[in-house]
Amino acid sequence: MSEQQAHCELIDEHRLSIDLIEAQYTLKNSWGQKNAKSVLVLVSGIELAGKGESVKQLREWVDPRYLKVKADPPNMLSNDQAFWQPYVNFIPREGQIAVMFGNWYSDLLTTAMHVSKPLDETLFDAYAENMRAFEQDLKNNQVDVIKVWFDLSWKSLQKRLDHIDASERQWHKLHGLDWRNKKQYDNLQKLRQRFTEDWIIIDGEEPEVRDQSFAQSILQAMKDLPEHPTQGQEHWPQALIPHELLHPDTEKMEKAKYKKKLKKLSRRVAEAMRYDERKVVIVFEGMDATGKGGSIKRIIKRLDPREYDIFTISAPEKYELRHPYLWRFWTKLDHCSDIRIFDRSWYGRVLVERVEGFASELEWQRAYDEINRFEKDLIDSQTVIIKFWLSISKDEQEQRFHAREKTPHKRFKITEDDWRNRSKWNEYLNAAADMFERTSTEFSPWTIVATDDKYTARIQVLKTILKQLQAD
Amino acid sequence: MSEQQAHCELIDEHRLSIDLIEAQYTLKNSWGQKNAKSVLVLVSGIELAGKGESVKQLREWVDPRYLKVKADPPNMLSNDQAFWQPYVNFIPREGQIAVMFGNWYSDLLTTAMHVSKPLDETLFDAYAENMRAFEQDLKNNQVDVIKVWFDLSWKSLQKRLDHIDASERQWHKLHGLDWRNKKQYDNLQKLRQRFTEDWIIIDGEEPEVRDQSFAQSILQAMKDLPEHPTQGQEHWPQALIPHELLHPDTEKMEKAKYKKKLKKLSRRVAEAMRYDERKVVIVFEGMDATGKGGSIKRIIKRLDPREYDIFTISAPEKYELRHPYLWRFWTKLDHCSDIRIFDRSWYGRVLVERVEGFASELEWQRAYDEINRFEKDLIDSQTVIIKFWLSISKDEQEQRFHAREKTPHKRFKITEDDWRNRSKWNEYLNAAADMFERTSTEFSPWTIVATDDKYTARIQVLKTILKQLQAD
Repeated sequence: MSEQQAHCELIDEHRLSIDLIEAQYTLKNSWGQKNAKSVLVLVSGIELAGKGESVKQLREWVDPRYLKVKADPPNMLSNDQAFWQPYVNFIPREGQIAVMFGNWYSDLLTTAMHVSKPLDETLFDAYAENMRAFEQDLKNNQVDVIKVWFDLSWKSLQKRLDHIDASERQWHKLHGLDWRNKKQYDNLQKLRQRFTEDWIIIDGEEPEVRDQSFAQSILQAMKDLPEHPTQGQEHWPQALIPHELLHPDTEKMEKAKYKKKLKKLSRRVAEAMRYDERKVVIVFEGMDATGKGGSIKRIIKRLDPREYDIFTISAPEKYELRHPYLWRFWTKLDHCSDIRIFDRSWYGRVLVERVEGFASELEWQRAYDEINRFEKDLIDSQTVIIKFWLSISKDEQEQRFHAREKTPHKRFKITEDDWRNRSKWNEYLNAAADMFERTSTEFSPWTIVATDDKYTARIQVLKTILKQLQAD
Repeated sequence: MSEQQAHCELIDEHRLSIDLIEAQYTLKNSWGQKNAKSVLVLVSGIELAGKGESVKQLREWVDPRYLKVKADPPNMLSNDQAFWQPYVNFIPREGQIAVMFGNWYSDLLTTAMHVSKPLDETLFDAYAENMRAFEQDLKNNQVDVIKVWFDLSWKSLQKRLDHIDASERQWHKLHGLDWRNKKQYDNLQKLRQRFTEDWIIIDGEEPEVRDQSFAQSILQAMKDLPEHPTQGQEHWPQALIPHELLHPDTEKMEKAKYKKKLKKLSRRVAEAMRYDERKVVIVFEGMDATGKGGSIKRIIKRLDPREYDIFTISAPEKYELRHPYLWRFWTKLDHCSDIRIFDRSWYGRVLVERVEGFASELEWQRAYDEINRFEKDLIDSQTVIIKFWLSISKDEQEQRFHAREKTPHKRFKITEDDWRNRSKWNEYLNAAADMFERTSTEFSPWTIVATDDKYTARIQVLKTILKQLQAD
């Protein structure tokens, strides 16, 4: 892969505009089709190279109502949030095209140029690699990412600074850099070359060529609407179902003993979570009626309601389906308490969506890596992830279903779906087995908890949380 | 209306818990039904009166997964945003129940107690009245609002402060008040009594009574699921259709003259918007093919793409239908540029939704006042609203439809819907007439622009913007 210097032949403006508008509407109407996609354009570059002007010109040629533009001041990269966090709400959904001036690369550059202790090359490159992996995940999920660097030589930059127009001055301080400083300019060029190898480079020298190069690149990106493959590997190496899932043995715990342990443990868990400096994410997966709700109730027993958030995850909304699968989780992790409990989670992709066929083979097979990267990003931004699979024997589940049907305040909890899922018992066990094998990572392991005895299960959940918080 | 002192008989905890859970699931399952609603609980009160404990206890009795709790530090009320702005993302949708510790009343109290120049009584009362009107709009749109004040006598408060538990100390500084100061305590009590007349007042003296009073109030609120009336007024006073809509005459403007005027005006409009200290909201409504897109293009001609946002409004998404009608606009006005252009808008409620029957009679009849209040809130928070109705003659529209069908890059713009809407021409004119009469307020007037001649129309749009910005 190498930088793509944009060269273009100037074409008739009116023609270009018509082509752009047609491509825009084709993209817009791709929504829900087999070749649906969205286009995310990341724009960065040297000040005064004309990125603002080129986007302005593009917006004049297209139908401006269907070209979103975002420009926020840069965020310093921090240990506290993943680099994509400030931007996820702006990732375009199927059929949309969006231009982001402020983006993770401008954050990377700003951080590298500004912090008192600059990023070393290894860290810089690790960030860039991580960003590229995230973009690859976007692409796999129907979000095309086009990256455009507007370049300008030192000499031209200085000349432009001499003649800067007062009305435009407001945009030039965005990066807070001193563009009269040659050393700084050279440093920036050196840094950006560490990541621009798969970018389109546009020379800002000639405004007309620059604007058309940019517009023609965007046109190309919009026009390209390939069918998305759905077929997965021909031979899927099915993992063995762990013994604990096939025979979820538990000893029976006496109520008195349970009460005593619970009292002590729930307090210790609350304190451990409250005083941990990291954010805590607790994930519950498992068959129906395994007591996810009951376990959650005991985790939060000693917490103040303002200290945690509980997310119950069910089928995605229609608008969420127009985004990458993980998008609805990216956007949930902002603006919530530091303790987040998930009653079902992003693992739906490789469980229910796999078993029920809502995700294509390719999609769920790819999801393991996507999920691992997602969790790694969370962990790198000061989060501990604790994942539970609540297992149950088939007999015990049947008994609980019947009990629910008979108990007034529990009959709401049982639906046709629950019985239907039960009929796919083995498919779910297979899916779970694959999930353990592929997503039980060193930094984010799964814990299987047998729940035929509820008391034992709840105590094990609390103990596991405590242990994992203390271990890390 | 008067304060409701919550008195309750203590009932068996297990029974109460079952009743709460049943009510929760009934509420949850009301979604999409005729009696659907959500419940928003605003909680405020004297520190240490035990609001945190009562909510914690409530969350232990209910299924905690279906009781959202939010607690943000208070926001100072400002001229810059409507009091509801920080909270709209948290208003529960149909079937949900949510508790807000931080809410517009705590903001009001904090502002009144803290600012260097305290709010005078008139302003305080005006805020409170405005809040109540907003809540009434919520209630009319299926969001029940329950307000609970946790009270505590001065003597008890002092006693509790003496024995405060270290682990709870973190919550007591939220309002940053000195709870040892009797004068301040009295002042707070006096202030809150200015708005608590329709609140439930819970005495924090006896923890058990307090918790049950609160839980029983919430139970009552969840259980009450009335059918929503849909019938409007028996005799709707239809407004007369303005002459400009029936005969949208325009003189023809020469292209050369247009170009010259456009050049000058688009620059002046850009500058007027850019340097206005207020936010600018421009609304376009009107029949299809009246040139809304073309007008928008000329407004933004001289603006940088980073300076404005364009919103194209079409049918609401399914998840948006689970919220009050205006909710999707409330949530759009955050995090966007200061210039916001709407290609169709909240007026859809009294136009397409009225004509097509998507809104009940009662709903669209009520919407005029809701919209006026909404716009007033925007205007009070430093916004100028400029509203255009683009009118067209029926003949001209037909010609444009045919032209669109024949022009490659315009054929995407014409759909079956457009022809269908055309067949309801008179219903739309009636709806527009009522809209002008009821929402063309002094602070936010409508401008009707005849568009049979596009050049004249675009120039009139620009002139109107300029005039309205300069007038205010």
